[in-house]
Amino acid sequence: MPVRLVACVPNISEGRRPEVVAAAAAAVRATPGVFLLDCSSDASHNRSVLTFAGPPDAVLEAAVALAGRAVALIDLETHRGEHPRIGALDVLPFVPLAGVAMEECKDLARRAGALLWERLGVPVYLYGEAAALPGRRRLPAVRRGGYEALKQEIGRPERWPDIGEPRLHPTAGATAVGARRPLIAFNIYLNTADREVAREIARGVRESGGGLPAVQARGMYIRERGQAQVSLNLLDHTRTSPLAALRAVEGEAARRGVAVTETELVGLMPLDAVLGVARDALRLPRLAPAGILETRLLEAAGIDIVSATSAGRRDPAR
Amino acid sequence: MPVRLVACVPNISEGRRPEVVAAAAAAVRATPGVFLLDCSSDASHNRSVLTFAGPPDAVLEAAVALAGRAVALIDLETHRGEHPRIGALDVLPFVPLAGVAMEECKDLARRAGALLWERLGVPVYLYGEAAALPGRRRLPAVRRGGYEALKQEIGRPERWPDIGEPRLHPTAGATAVGARRPLIAFNIYLNTADREVAREIARGVRESGGGLPAVQARGMYIRERGQAQVSLNLLDHTRTSPLAALRAVEGEAARRGVAVTETELVGLMPLDAVLGVARDALRLPRLAPAGILETRLLEAAGIDIVSATSAGRRDPAR
Repeated sequence: MPVRLVACVPNISEGRRPEVVAAAAAAVRATPGVFLLDCSSDASHNRSVLTFAGPPDAVLEAAVALAGRAVALIDLETHRGEHPRIGALDVLPFVPLAGVAMEECKDLARRAGALLWERLGVPVYLYGEAAALPGRRRLPAVRRGGYEALKQEIGRPERWPDIGEPRLHPTAGATAVGARRPLIAFNIYLNTADREVAREIARGVRESGGGLPAVQARGMYIRERGQAQVSLNLLDHTRTSPLAALRAVEGEAARRGVAVTETELVGLMPLDAVLGVARDALRLPRLAPAGILETRLLEAAGIDIVSATSAGRRDPAR
Repeated sequence: MPVRLVACVPNISEGRRPEVVAAAAAAVRATPGVFLLDCSSDASHNRSVLTFAGPPDAVLEAAVALAGRAVALIDLETHRGEHPRIGALDVLPFVPLAGVAMEECKDLARRAGALLWERLGVPVYLYGEAAALPGRRRLPAVRRGGYEALKQEIGRPERWPDIGEPRLHPTAGATAVGARRPLIAFNIYLNTADREVAREIARGVRESGGGLPAVQARGMYIRERGQAQVSLNLLDHTRTSPLAALRAVEGEAARRGVAVTETELVGLMPLDAVLGVARDALRLPRLAPAGILETRLLEAAGIDIVSATSAGRRDPAR
């Protein structure tokens, strides 16, 4: 029987209190059949990203258990951080990995949204592939103005939630629940402390500003490093790869007399994206998972990583 | 318990009689715990390369079993072929893959060499990382003149074997047994048909010409494509990565008014090398196997590819 795997990548509004992040992670670990793959906290953003995977129903159960911990332990009224957010559990996307269609992840998002409202009293906005309204496909539109603005505006018809009544949870706000393809969160540091430069660069490279396809970008200042940062979400690495994004940011930066110092990943990158970077950088068009020693080794052991890597790609040749 | 994996890449002096190659492969397959990953025969070179992997002791057992078949079935007195060779089992390198240090592969090489002499009467030259004499690190030095010259010269002190007495096996000759890192065979095509340009570039980038460390290079003309090619062996991708090699070839090419059109891999590349390319190209110094979605999934399933990819690296930050 083929393995059926969904990933879930909740973002919670807590990156400074390790015990709260640990409680959220524990809720995932306690769910049978689910593997916690990654947990990355960012103190400056005051935000953590967890990645877990498993069969669809088990992933749904873990997601709702994690939501319960986040709602109980995080208070948006006192939360401060760089990143825009509307809730204690801010974002809850489901991602098809293996043997699962996007349609099933959209269904998981709707079921998770219903449980968040019924059990926890958190209103839900459906986004990404699960969006019920076309204007809510993009996360920035759903989170516009963050918790503070949404608190004022949730009564307006255009900001009503998709699931639940138009009132925020008193401490946990609201949650954006969605379905999407694997996303790469990629931060690029500049040799300047000037946040405005990073913002200009972000405006120049993001899709909404006429820049790169399937790219979201923001400029920020990272106090710990004393550096400005362009923070990117690559929504479809087959349309804009991390290397293409870096080159575009380097170009915009050079025009402003600044340079890139280094980059970082938040969370995980799919193997296919790494191979894409190597293909471009090495001018090696035929590099495929089967050209990698470890892939062959795993194949020999009966583990078909090749199908996992190409999961969810419409066009394996791209 | 972490998986411990070594690869072994024996070269045997038989590429025309499939039944002999099959007998060698069968000796590998019959060893419990060992996976045969690849077997490629070349009729023109009259030579076959097998790749297999498994836990260290099982790989040693398979290597000695394969040696027994090669010694019994191949007669160097009647062997003809393009490629330089000194024995029926010509070369026997051990390569650290997962949870195994180079030191252990050097030890495997010495143990395999002792068994080849004791059980089969084949004298052994230790090469690569396992070399006992500095002049024997490079394989071309060990094989100089091939079987025919070694037959005349084995009595000279400078050609005495490292293990065994200075007399060839009457039909199976001698064997070069060694330890090395995974090798990457990487070809770079130029936008010229001029082989001499490729040769000049090769001389400029290879280690023996004062170029890049751990790089062997040759210039050739590829009739099928009508293009000159720089053909590289990257003996240690942690010292010279495929990206560094490409950049050096591009630099040498530019000085001669030619350009690189594309590249190709012959055989397999270790995942670690792909990650190294992505680290450099993306300026992403902390990209590690653990940052890849699929490796986390496999880890969660009990397969520790992370240790596999970082095996044998002295400095994981490089």
